[in-house]
Amino acid sequence: MERIYFDNAATTPLDPLVLNAMMPYFTNSFGNASSLHRFGTESKVVLEKCRQQIANYLNASGDEFVFTSSGTESNNMAIKGVAFANRERGNHIITSAIEHDCVLSTCKWLETQGFYITYLSVDSDGVIDIEQLSKCINPKTILVSIMHGNNEIGTLQNLEQMGAICREKGVYFHSDACQSFGKVSVDVQLMNLDLLTINSHKIYGPKGVGGLFIKKGIKITPWLHGGSQEFGIRSSTENIAGIVGFAKAVELCMTNFSKEIDVLTRQRDKLINGILLNVKNAYLNGHPTQRIPNNINICIRGLEGEAIRLLLILDELGIAVSAGSACSSNDKSNNASHVLRAIGLNPFEARGSIRISLGRFNNDEEIDYFINAFEQSILKLNPIFS
Amino acid sequence: MERIYFDNAATTPLDPLVLNAMMPYFTNSFGNASSLHRFGTESKVVLEKCRQQIANYLNASGDEFVFTSSGTESNNMAIKGVAFANRERGNHIITSAIEHDCVLSTCKWLETQGFYITYLSVDSDGVIDIEQLSKCINPKTILVSIMHGNNEIGTLQNLEQMGAICREKGVYFHSDACQSFGKVSVDVQLMNLDLLTINSHKIYGPKGVGGLFIKKGIKITPWLHGGSQEFGIRSSTENIAGIVGFAKAVELCMTNFSKEIDVLTRQRDKLINGILLNVKNAYLNGHPTQRIPNNINICIRGLEGEAIRLLLILDELGIAVSAGSACSSNDKSNNASHVLRAIGLNPFEARGSIRISLGRFNNDEEIDYFINAFEQSILKLNPIFS
Repeated sequence: MERIYFDNAATTPLDPLVLNAMMPYFTNSFGNASSLHRFGTESKVVLEKCRQQIANYLNASGDEFVFTSSGTESNNMAIKGVAFANRERGNHIITSAIEHDCVLSTCKWLETQGFYITYLSVDSDGVIDIEQLSKCINPKTILVSIMHGNNEIGTLQNLEQMGAICREKGVYFHSDACQSFGKVSVDVQLMNLDLLTINSHKIYGPKGVGGLFIKKGIKITPWLHGGSQEFGIRSSTENIAGIVGFAKAVELCMTNFSKEIDVLTRQRDKLINGILLNVKNAYLNGHPTQRIPNNINICIRGLEGEAIRLLLILDELGIAVSAGSACSSNDKSNNASHVLRAIGLNPFEARGSIRISLGRFNNDEEIDYFINAFEQSILKLNPIFS
Repeated sequence: MERIYFDNAATTPLDPLVLNAMMPYFTNSFGNASSLHRFGTESKVVLEKCRQQIANYLNASGDEFVFTSSGTESNNMAIKGVAFANRERGNHIITSAIEHDCVLSTCKWLETQGFYITYLSVDSDGVIDIEQLSKCINPKTILVSIMHGNNEIGTLQNLEQMGAICREKGVYFHSDACQSFGKVSVDVQLMNLDLLTINSHKIYGPKGVGGLFIKKGIKITPWLHGGSQEFGIRSSTENIAGIVGFAKAVELCMTNFSKEIDVLTRQRDKLINGILLNVKNAYLNGHPTQRIPNNINICIRGLEGEAIRLLLILDELGIAVSAGSACSSNDKSNNASHVLRAIGLNPFEARGSIRISLGRFNNDEEIDYFINAFEQSILKLNPIFS
């Protein structure tokens, strides 16, 4: 068997159809979209077509979507940009304890710049209490930033209800949908979103491309100043090949949406059930049903603290999974995941959890192979499980 | 004749060798460089190899170079990052009147955040007076940011002397070398640089990739917070394919450096002389010799204000040139270039200037064709030139 890639939440391979779409924009149609000659105007036309296409899928207008270099940049821009632009209205921001590192460290930095941050707690499934959110909004609150689907445990939040509360209270509402977009319906109108982060390399598009929906009228300070590209909100020469790849990746997700999600959900549940049946003392982290269709996060009692060793044993067998999120997995200090701590796991349990994330290019055969390999790897680590 | 691309200062086509180098990193070796499994560690090895390679060419250490998404991001990060990190030391920054828009608008924004900026003037060739720079440094000065080669008129500054003054006075020295890097020697040690911006899409590499040299020990605030990639200074999942392309582009520039520069310089001078000989009342903007080897900026007395019409006539003939920089060329207000104004042109003269920038894939035949077409286009615009 070839190597098995079960770490699609960290990044996905490029879909070959995406690469095909990108190819003409490297060497032939390479113009700077800001140039006035035909090389430039051709790029500009493609850029605006891609923008409109992605915006349509979000139920937004084309002029409400800007391209960035990543989900991290979009989240930084959304939160810091709103913070700096609305400082006179207030200095309070609400987020949650289980956000991606880029949201949390952005918020930590804002604390050094005169802002006050509330980090909402979550229940044992990773769900935020909407009543709690509502209570935390005060007259100084300018922004609520809550991720849609969690990158580690897959739990989905009810953005629609949260957005309605924010709208009612006149507070901007931002969500990081990097993990959910393409796998769960996202509609900026329905969800009352003012800002929404998405990116490309989690949906079989190229790395180095992201986007930010910014509702018309939102007051935001650009985070990259310059030549006034992207409506003056995000400057830099547009990465046309990357943007074309991103738009194609979105199109592929959306045109096969139901079918792909059905397959993913079935495979995910097959894998979860296979593990729970075959592996002693295994349990699932995150919400049992309200979760991203490709996410599996497993903890095993008796293997506390051993996730990285388990990951490496699986890697020897040619299987790629993750211990925590990729972003923090090369943290040499082996800190326990803040997400798993937030749902109530102790540091040892948290360091004994494995994330398995499926994708478009996985198949049932790989799942069968994995369940067996997983069981064997655990035995190798600790014969007590036999 | 095929279309002629003489706008290499705006962006360059990807070198086919660069694309070849990138290809494996899209669909096969696509791992997240932060992942612990082999897909990830393979990416990490490639990432560090690319970093080391580029750093070597700059005469820097590998751990002094971070990848970003663009020159714009590098400039924003360098200037704002140093400003925010060194606020307690001082709030004064020195730059010049002819910097790229991303430096100038970054500085304009910093003025709204409590910083004080000095914009040094230039002489009629676009050269900064080093005595003037020295005089402007005061105890509150934290940073001097001066571009190496100007993007519009090609004039090169003497970074070595400027850097020596900054070093002596204990002030950080940053330079934007996006236009010069790959065409003029850049050595961070020799030039006493603390920070240096370079990017990929001006040297036949992909768009969406840039880099920033940050000398060891420099105090800088990250501009994108997150998962602690790039030594914790610039977070975001690394764009490996793009980074591989950037490194390959740098390698190609450096291995053929002398030969390529000789060809460019000869072609540039052939084009300048051809225009000055054949086109009445044409004169060269920028320094006659101390200029980037591929830059030509021409103004024509009697054609004041007509640059865009001239550009469009040339475009009809299949020739791409620029009026001002690409970044501001789609400025519908048709504002006169701040660079040309700074060297003493009036607004009408400034709007009558054309930038012609050569590149690796141009040839002598195109230059001959261009000189004739340029002459004819001017006649078409104004028969008085016949």
